[in-house]
Amino acid sequence: MLEDLKKEVCEANLLLPEYGLVTFTWGNVSAVDRERGVIVIKPSGVEYDELTPDMMVVVDFDGNIVEGDLNPSSDTPTHIELYKSFKNIGGVVHTHSTNAVSFAQAKRGITIYGTTHADYFFGDIPCTRPLNREEIEGDYEKNTGVVIAEAFKNIDPEAMPAVLVANHGPFAWGKDARDAVHNAVVLEQVALMAMQTEMLNPNITAVSDYIKDKHYYRKHGENAYYGQKNRK
Amino acid sequence: MLEDLKKEVCEANLLLPEYGLVTFTWGNVSAVDRERGVIVIKPSGVEYDELTPDMMVVVDFDGNIVEGDLNPSSDTPTHIELYKSFKNIGGVVHTHSTNAVSFAQAKRGITIYGTTHADYFFGDIPCTRPLNREEIEGDYEKNTGVVIAEAFKNIDPEAMPAVLVANHGPFAWGKDARDAVHNAVVLEQVALMAMQTEMLNPNITAVSDYIKDKHYYRKHGENAYYGQKNRK
Amino acid sequence: MLEDLKKEVCEANLLLPEYGLVTFTWGNVSAVDRERGVIVIKPSGVEYDELTPDMMVVVDFDGNIVEGDLNPSSDTPTHIELYKSFKNIGGVVHTHSTNAVSFAQAKRGITIYGTTHADYFFGDIPCTRPLNREEIEGDYEKNTGVVIAEAFKNIDPEAMPAVLVANHGPFAWGKDARDAVHNAVVLEQVALMAMQTEMLNPNITAVSDYIKDKHYYRKHGENAYYGQKNRK
Amino acid sequence: MLEDLKKEVCEANLLLPEYGLVTFTWGNVSAVDRERGVIVIKPSGVEYDELTPDMMVVVDFDGNIVEGDLNPSSDTPTHIELYKSFKNIGGVVHTHSTNAVSFAQAKRGITIYGTTHADYFFGDIPCTRPLNREEIEGDYEKNTGVVIAEAFKNIDPEAMPAVLVANHGPFAWGKDARDAVHNAVVLEQVALMAMQTEMLNPNITAVSDYIKDKHYYRKHGENAYYGQKNRK
Repeated sequence: MLEDLKKEVCEANLLLPEYGLVTFTWGNVSAVDRERGVIVIKPSGVEYDELTPDMMVVVDFDGNIVEGDLNPSSDTPTHIELYKSFKNIGGVVHTHSTNAVSFAQAKRGITIYGTTHADYFFGDIPCTRPLNREEIEGDYEKNTGVVIAEAFKNIDPEAMPAVLVANHGPFAWGKDARDAVHNAVVLEQVALMAMQTEMLNPNITAVSDYIKDKHYYRKHGENAYYGQKNRK
Repeated sequence: MLEDLKKEVCEANLLLPEYGLVTFTWGNVSAVDRERGVIVIKPSGVEYDELTPDMMVVVDFDGNIVEGDLNPSSDTPTHIELYKSFKNIGGVVHTHSTNAVSFAQAKRGITIYGTTHADYFFGDIPCTRPLNREEIEGDYEKNTGVVIAEAFKNIDPEAMPAVLVANHGPFAWGKDARDAVHNAVVLEQVALMAMQTEMLNPNITAVSDYIKDKHYYRKHGENAYYGQKNRK
Repeated sequence: MLEDLKKEVCEANLLLPEYGLVTFTWGNVSAVDRERGVIVIKPSGVEYDELTPDMMVVVDFDGNIVEGDLNPSSDTPTHIELYKSFKNIGGVVHTHSTNAVSFAQAKRGITIYGTTHADYFFGDIPCTRPLNREEIEGDYEKNTGVVIAEAFKNIDPEAMPAVLVANHGPFAWGKDARDAVHNAVVLEQVALMAMQTEMLNPNITAVSDYIKDKHYYRKHGENAYYGQKNRK
Repeated sequence: MLEDLKKEVCEANLLLPEYGLVTFTWGNVSAVDRERGVIVIKPSGVEYDELTPDMMVVVDFDGNIVEGDLNPSSDTPTHIELYKSFKNIGGVVHTHSTNAVSFAQAKRGITIYGTTHADYFFGDIPCTRPLNREEIEGDYEKNTGVVIAEAFKNIDPEAMPAVLVANHGPFAWGKDARDAVHNAVVLEQVALMAMQTEMLNPNITAVSDYIKDKHYYRKHGENAYYGQKNRK
C-alpha cells in the first residue's frame, strides 16, 4: 500500500544529504495520508545511501506499525504529535543541521532580520521551552511534539513552518514531504545569516511589520505574485 | 529576437549556483539592449537546472512583456530602475548570498579593509537606507531601485558596481550579465573577509586613500597594468 | 598476517579525507588485535590517495615493527598507550580537524549543550592538561597517551570516546577502526555547534543530567531503542 | 627552454583552485632557476582552467621577459624581490585566500597556538608594516617584496615560509613551487584555527618554546623523525 507516498518520502529523505542537512543518519522525513490515518516515515538508523522506498515504515496515529520490516525512526511519536496538532500539514522533517541546532542549543528563537526570512516565516522562528524532567523520563518523543504544539498556541503553523526544540534541534513541515525539506533548507540558511547579522551589528533589531507582511504575502495567499503559479 | 542576449543571460544565471551564490531560486540576472529599449531577465521562481535560453523573458522599460511565455522575475522593476539610473551598465544581478545578506540585514556597508576589495570597489560598498512604509506598500520593487539610485547620488556606479539593500540583500552590475555576476562573486568574498577582519581586530579602520587609488587604477582606466588586455 | 585488519584500517584511514577531517597527511587510524598483542596503523607521512592495505604497518605493544616496509605513524606510541589504558577499545584515530583543534588550542573541553552531543558523549568532552617540559622533551608521543589516560582517571572511555589534547588536537576511539572514525566525525560536528552555541548565547550552560542520561541510554546499553539492532 | 620548470610551475598554479585558495585569477606561483638567473611565473589575469605550461612566462631578475607571449603576473616584482632576499628558496606563491587575508587586513600576525602551526612555522607568522604612500605610489610591487624582507631581518625564511602583507594578503615559499603551495595551504588552515581559538578563549596565549622546538624539529633538520625520508 501507499507505494507513491513511500517513494515521495524516500526521495525527500534523500534530499537531506544532498542539501547538507545531515551527518550520518541524523534526520528523518515523513508524510501523512490523513484519509487512511497513517504516516510513512524513514526507518531508524539506516544509512541514506542504502535507503529504498520499500524500506519506508507505515505507522498509524497510535504508533503501531501497519506495514514495514524495520523499526520506524525513533522520532516517530514527535511526527505523529505534529500531524495531530497541525491539521493542514502533509510532511514533517527533523534534522540536526548545524546552524539551526546552534540556535536550539542556545535556547533562542531566530529573529526576523530580513526578507529571506520573511519570504518563508511570518515572524521570529520560535524555540520551545526545554522539556522538564518528567517529560524527558516519560514518553520523551511524544512530549517533544506536545511541547512544540504548546509553543504554537498563538502561532499559525502554516505561516510558520518550522520550530527549534530547545537543547535539541529543528523540526520543519510543509504541504508534503518535499515542501517540508524545502523549509528545512531555508531554515538552516536563515539561521546562518541571522547569526552573522548579529555578529556584524549586535544592536540590530527585527524588521518592521510592513516588510514582514509585504514579503510573506508576496509569496503566499491570494495576492501572491512570485513565481509562475498565478499565471493563467 | 535577441537570441544571443537570451543565451548570455541564461548562462550568467547558471553561474549563480555554480559559484554558490544562490539557494533554490533566490537570484536573477538580466542584461539590457539599450538600442531596442528592452531587458532580458530570468523568469520568476524557475529552478536553475530547468533554465533554458528560450525561457528568458524580454520586457520593455515600463515592465511590459515583449516576448516570453513566463512571468519575469518579481525583481524586474528593480532591474529596470537600475538600468534607467545607471546609464552605462549592461547587466544586473540580484542574489541572497550569505555574507552580503548578513551585512544588508545588519544595515551596514562594507568597509574597505584591503586590496582585494580595492581591486574592484572604489571605497566602502554602500548600504541603502531601509525603505519606508509607503515605499514598501506601494510599488515595492521599483522603489527598491529608487532607493539604490538615491544611495548613489554622489557615487559613480561604474567604480562601485554593487550595493546592499538594507534588510534585503545585494544587487551588483557590470558591463554585461557575466561581468555583473563576476562582481557579485567578489562582493560575497569581500564581505566574508571584512567580517573576519573585524572579528580579528575590532579596532581596524579602512585602508588609506593611496592604497584605494593604487589598486583600483591598477585594474581600471587607461593606466591599468593588470591582465593581458593592454598588451599590443 | 592480519590481511583483514589491514584492509579495515586502510579503509578507515581513507574515510578521513572523505569526511573532511584531514589536510594532507595530518591524521592516522589504527586497530588492535589484542590476542596477538599487535596493532595495525597507517605509515607515517604517506598521502591518502596512495594508501593501500599492504602499506599498513604492524607493531607490537613496545612499538617494534612486526611487519611492514614503512615507518609507522609518528603518533604510534600514543595509540599504543591508549590501547594499554583503555582495555575495551578496538580502534583509535588522531586528526587535526579544524573545530576540535580549535578547542584543543583554546585549552578547553567541549561543554554538552545538546542532544547531538549527548547521543555520543556522556558529558563534557575533556581537554587534557598541557604536557610539561620534561614530558615533551622526553618520550613525547608516549607521554601524550599517558596524559590522556590521566584525564580519564574518573571517566569511562567507552562512554566518552574522544579527548582533546591541549595545544594539539583530538584523539577518538571506538569498538573498531571505523567506529573510531565515526566518533571523530561526530566530535568535529559537535565542536562546531558548541562554538556557535556560545556565540549565540554567551551565558548558555550545559544540558540537564536527565537529558544527558536520556539521550545516551537511548542509543547505548540494554535499553537502547535507536536503530535496528534490538529488533528480533 | 626550461620546459620541466614550466610544467612544474603550471601544475603548482593549478593546485591553487584545487585547494580552494583562489577566486577567479587571484593567485600566482613561480619558481626560480638560480643558475640561469631567471624565474618562471604565471601570466597575469589568465583563468586557471585555460592555463598550460607553454603560457608560463620566463623573466630575469630585472623583470625583463626572456621568453613568453603573455604579460607575467603583475606581482612578478614581489616574487623577484623574495628570490633576491631569501637565497635558499625555490618557489613562491601569492594568494588572496580567505583566512590569511583576514589576518592581513586586520594587520595582525598569526600567534602560534598549537602543534599544527608548530609543525610548519617556527613561531608567530609575521605581518609586515603597511607600505607608506611613497612605497605605494612608487614601484609598488617591488616595494611589497622589500617590506617583506624588512620584516624578516631577524627571522629565518626557511623556518618561517610565509608572511602576511598588511592590507593585502599572504605570500608563502618553499624549496620549489609545489612546496610553496603546500605551505600556503597550511597557512590558510592554521589561520582559520587560530581565529577560532581566539573566539573560544580570548585570553589564550602562544604555546611554550619547548612545544615550538619539539614539533618543528620533529619534521625538520637532521633529527627529524616524521615521514619516511630518514628510512634507509
